[in-house]
Amino acid sequence: MPNHTFPTQRLGVLLVVSGPSGSGKTTLCRQLADVGEVVYSVSCTTRAPRPGEVHGRDYFFLSEQEFQDHIRRDEFFEHARVHGNLYGTLKTYVKQNLERGADVVMDIDIQGASIVRACDDELVQRCLTDVFILPPSVEALKERLSNRGTEDDEKLSLRLSNALTEIAQWHTYTYALVSGTREHDLDRFRALLVAERLRVVRQQN
Amino acid sequence: MPNHTFPTQRLGVLLVVSGPSGSGKTTLCRQLADVGEVVYSVSCTTRAPRPGEVHGRDYFFLSEQEFQDHIRRDEFFEHARVHGNLYGTLKTYVKQNLERGADVVMDIDIQGASIVRACDDELVQRCLTDVFILPPSVEALKERLSNRGTEDDEKLSLRLSNALTEIAQWHTYTYALVSGTREHDLDRFRALLVAERLRVVRQQN
Repeated sequence: MPNHTFPTQRLGVLLVVSGPSGSGKTTLCRQLADVGEVVYSVSCTTRAPRPGEVHGRDYFFLSEQEFQDHIRRDEFFEHARVHGNLYGTLKTYVKQNLERGADVVMDIDIQGASIVRACDDELVQRCLTDVFILPPSVEALKERLSNRGTEDDEKLSLRLSNALTEIAQWHTYTYALVSGTREHDLDRFRALLVAERLRVVRQQN
Repeated sequence: MPNHTFPTQRLGVLLVVSGPSGSGKTTLCRQLADVGEVVYSVSCTTRAPRPGEVHGRDYFFLSEQEFQDHIRRDEFFEHARVHGNLYGTLKTYVKQNLERGADVVMDIDIQGASIVRACDDELVQRCLTDVFILPPSVEALKERLSNRGTEDDEKLSLRLSNALTEIAQWHTYTYALVSGTREHDLDRFRALLVAERLRVVRQQN
């Protein structure tokens, strides 16, 4: 039996991660990227940078005009307006990584995730999986949102209401991870990636 | 939003594991059971115990007559004759574990796995996933089979030939794990279980 009947190569995993503000999803995605295990998919946005955010690391901060130009040239994988601002991820960047076997983690809201999921690109369909990160409880969510300290009361209330609406969608994802301790979360999140790397659908011979 | 919209309970994972003799699959399954993370599904067989094998731990060693009685009462999840001996797993044992949320690892040959996969039981379909363990290479497989020392040359040759035929089926499984070091194998095998526990299809609210 020739060796080429063994799996020899694999495509990258496209790990789509959603969850409300306060679920801890961005921290998890960043931690996985920091240990070098995945490429963190940097999105474009028209919203203003928050203190400490860096262009090209946290987001590509674009003007409305620049963003619209990308839309016209169909360069976004998906894009959506959330809380008045545009968010989107560039297609070619993601696909090139998947083709060379690099895993891509996409930290994306529910609207964006559903668009990526509905994408008819064969490579994307083969590489895609999705996980919803839930906060431990409603109480913990309230506390986490309050501790951010970047919002006035009205905005906080809006965020909480949005978060609760989003949470109701957890069962439409492939995986659901209820956040616990940071270490346990990262362990499970990493396991999810390791397992997805073993899926036959992405292995080739 | 009431708390019951969060996932609160889950069904067990039924992890069906196949791979040729010499792939290391039995060691992996045992290791996972030893750390208490899964219930190792003990099969029934009509073959004679090998030195060191214990009834009720390695297999339930049954007479041909006892085995046939279980078949008649439809108590097997699946059963098949391999190398002249009967092998089978009792249904109720597996399903009771899954219902109470315990994960069950089923170390089973390709024939048996395809029967379990085709089972029309709703609980089984919901809990089932499968993984094929491959040896690192054909050379490594030959070496591992030779080192067993329990077979004469003719039987060894038959086992090798069977193993190579089985290996060609790796792509019909959900996951494929190419065996490497024992530690790395266990890490990935455990990750697979951890990830499967997070699957929405087995979570309830």
